[in-house]
Amino acid sequence: MTTREDCAALDARDPLANFRARFALPEGVIYLDGNSLGALPLAAAERARDVIGEEWGDGLIRSWNEAGWMDLPFKVGARIAVLIGAEAGEVVACDSTSVNLFKLLAAALALRPKRHVVVTDSDNFPTDNYIAEGIGEFLGPRVERRLASADEIIDAIDGDTAVVSLTHVDYRTGRIHDMAAISAAAAARGALSLWDLSHSAGALALDLNGSGADLAVGCGYKYLNGGPGAPAYLFVAERHHAAIRQPLSGWMGHAAPFDFSPRFRPAPGIQRMLSGTPPVIALALLECGLDILSEAGMAALRAKSVALGELFMARIEARCAGHGLELLSPRDSAQRGSQVSYAYENGYGAVQALIARGVIGDFRQPDVMRFGLAPLYLRHVDVWDAAEALGEVLDGEEWRRHAYGEKGAVT
Amino acid sequence: MTTREDCAALDARDPLANFRARFALPEGVIYLDGNSLGALPLAAAERARDVIGEEWGDGLIRSWNEAGWMDLPFKVGARIAVLIGAEAGEVVACDSTSVNLFKLLAAALALRPKRHVVVTDSDNFPTDNYIAEGIGEFLGPRVERRLASADEIIDAIDGDTAVVSLTHVDYRTGRIHDMAAISAAAAARGALSLWDLSHSAGALALDLNGSGADLAVGCGYKYLNGGPGAPAYLFVAERHHAAIRQPLSGWMGHAAPFDFSPRFRPAPGIQRMLSGTPPVIALALLECGLDILSEAGMAALRAKSVALGELFMARIEARCAGHGLELLSPRDSAQRGSQVSYAYENGYGAVQALIARGVIGDFRQPDVMRFGLAPLYLRHVDVWDAAEALGEVLDGEEWRRHAYGEKGAVT
Repeated sequence: MTTREDCAALDARDPLANFRARFALPEGVIYLDGNSLGALPLAAAERARDVIGEEWGDGLIRSWNEAGWMDLPFKVGARIAVLIGAEAGEVVACDSTSVNLFKLLAAALALRPKRHVVVTDSDNFPTDNYIAEGIGEFLGPRVERRLASADEIIDAIDGDTAVVSLTHVDYRTGRIHDMAAISAAAAARGALSLWDLSHSAGALALDLNGSGADLAVGCGYKYLNGGPGAPAYLFVAERHHAAIRQPLSGWMGHAAPFDFSPRFRPAPGIQRMLSGTPPVIALALLECGLDILSEAGMAALRAKSVALGELFMARIEARCAGHGLELLSPRDSAQRGSQVSYAYENGYGAVQALIARGVIGDFRQPDVMRFGLAPLYLRHVDVWDAAEALGEVLDGEEWRRHAYGEKGAVT
Repeated sequence: MTTREDCAALDARDPLANFRARFALPEGVIYLDGNSLGALPLAAAERARDVIGEEWGDGLIRSWNEAGWMDLPFKVGARIAVLIGAEAGEVVACDSTSVNLFKLLAAALALRPKRHVVVTDSDNFPTDNYIAEGIGEFLGPRVERRLASADEIIDAIDGDTAVVSLTHVDYRTGRIHDMAAISAAAAARGALSLWDLSHSAGALALDLNGSGADLAVGCGYKYLNGGPGAPAYLFVAERHHAAIRQPLSGWMGHAAPFDFSPRFRPAPGIQRMLSGTPPVIALALLECGLDILSEAGMAALRAKSVALGELFMARIEARCAGHGLELLSPRDSAQRGSQVSYAYENGYGAVQALIARGVIGDFRQPDVMRFGLAPLYLRHVDVWDAAEALGEVLDGEEWRRHAYGEKGAVT
């Protein structure tokens, strides 16, 4: 890959090339932040008009049944299941990732009542660790949060471990945890595995059931393209459905929500993991993003994601040598999600300078430049141009123009 | 009020008459279910185009800061605060009512660690009681849920009571609890008061701070017209801000979410009650409904709501006499929210027959016909016509054509 023309030729024969036209991408922008907020599917803008204007406006309360609103958490869950290697009845779309983590951590501790340890990655996404902290504080001192580095997770699992709670793809480096090996190690020691798929679903071909995962959560607004603050989802392997209970036992998790009976009776299956009334409009928008992913297929998406990652690293090595960038992501694509990150001492200013040029990546503390490569709508030429832009920013010391600021964006 | 022409004359001089045109109400429908799902504000359909097409589609990740997405929970919370007698910094819009109830019940028990009793109304909305059940099950046997009838609440509060958790307006009967008296009784015995405002905010002039309320939650999709499954909200009186903690301690409740620090440090003020990423699109839509309510003003809305209720009861008494309808709602408007409910043995079929005629009310187990009177978009002639339609349904025994079914709608 030595010229931009080579990249254009790859784009011309890219089997996923036509999917770019399904998104509303602004002119003059190269968007390397689909791992933080996915782009807008044109179908979602269309669907919004229907669900708001017709279903809410005209159908009013009747739409709960007539437009299938009551079924949306399960219907959207089934769409996600296809992408993550789960069965339709094992996934439901609801709440936020944080809330779903709380439900599943509490549920896991209740399924293993004689154990008190939550093993997690010291580099786990902060909300995952904060929620585990909240569980510990409110369930009392019996819960211990055991932090281990990514390489030491398996050794940290012992007979006191109730659950191993990990983000599958590290939000900073893109490093992939070995889901099958860790889930097996947890199972061998009688513990459960809980996976946060926020940075992997829609970017990697996942196989939750094939990997022996017990529980999972994930975010709807990154590679799933569900929109800002889209509903999240959760997975419970079918073998746990009969025994699992969760503390946010709201009416939508009741076996008969409209009986208005005084006592809570958990619904059979995944429905018992629901709490409140489903966010109808947001679920309808999320469904549009999922439809496109299903159509493209995770194998083709992963293949293109790997190709874009290889190209990006090669171009940065060629174009930005000598500026002191340190690759934080695994060089081996088998161990890397759909992002490439570099540590760079002037990273904050460099990312701001890129954004000013229309090349949108993001910055993570303390010095991480993070570039997401969403294969549905990125071209090889975009990756070429982005590396070229970073080279110019570094050569021209454009990072000097951007003072370090407080504000961040949502990962 | 003896003729339909009198009603039309009232509508002609109704100071709120023009607000009806701000909603997308379908032709041929009299909508008496705004207490379950509020109607669509035309501004919300417009706002959806902007927040989806421009802010998400064009702005992408930049909109978290540039379009003010990060501030939406507080901005929308401040709009709700105006309606419920709270200060702007005491209310935040987030999650569902059920999730917010969980957060506040857990927080209340933690604020009163030597007490173990949650006092609640045996007729409370089911999800309120289910969530209290979930809290008890997961926090262990120390939590006791004490059910009392509406008249016995104050007597049930004792020195073991941590929190009194009530729905302000009963979802079936529309009966109003005396917020000031019960909050004062709770405070006098060292307990906290937690109010579910789902059936009162937007329909009654509330004064949380004037009533001495400690905590509150409420729903966004009823009288607030936020759309199906709209975000809910919660209130914490400012005097509790320093001490309150809640277990769903996700990153949005952190003092510095983008520091990605390993330990949770609660934000000052109401922000610590947040958990996950805000549902941006849904919050933007909810804001549109709130704008209209603020413009109309709660005093004028309450006055019209009372007038519509009086008219409806008078017309039902005149038109439906002899059919065995029993008024479940308080006859005294000072004790009644913005709905009127009747017990009727053929209530299920009668409500279905009304819906078939385009008069949309709802049915609640076991025999309750419930009619919501949303003063923003209902006319006096609508109320007249609805009573007339019910009279015809009863006279013609139209309820016989509608078999009892399983499905309900969302309250």
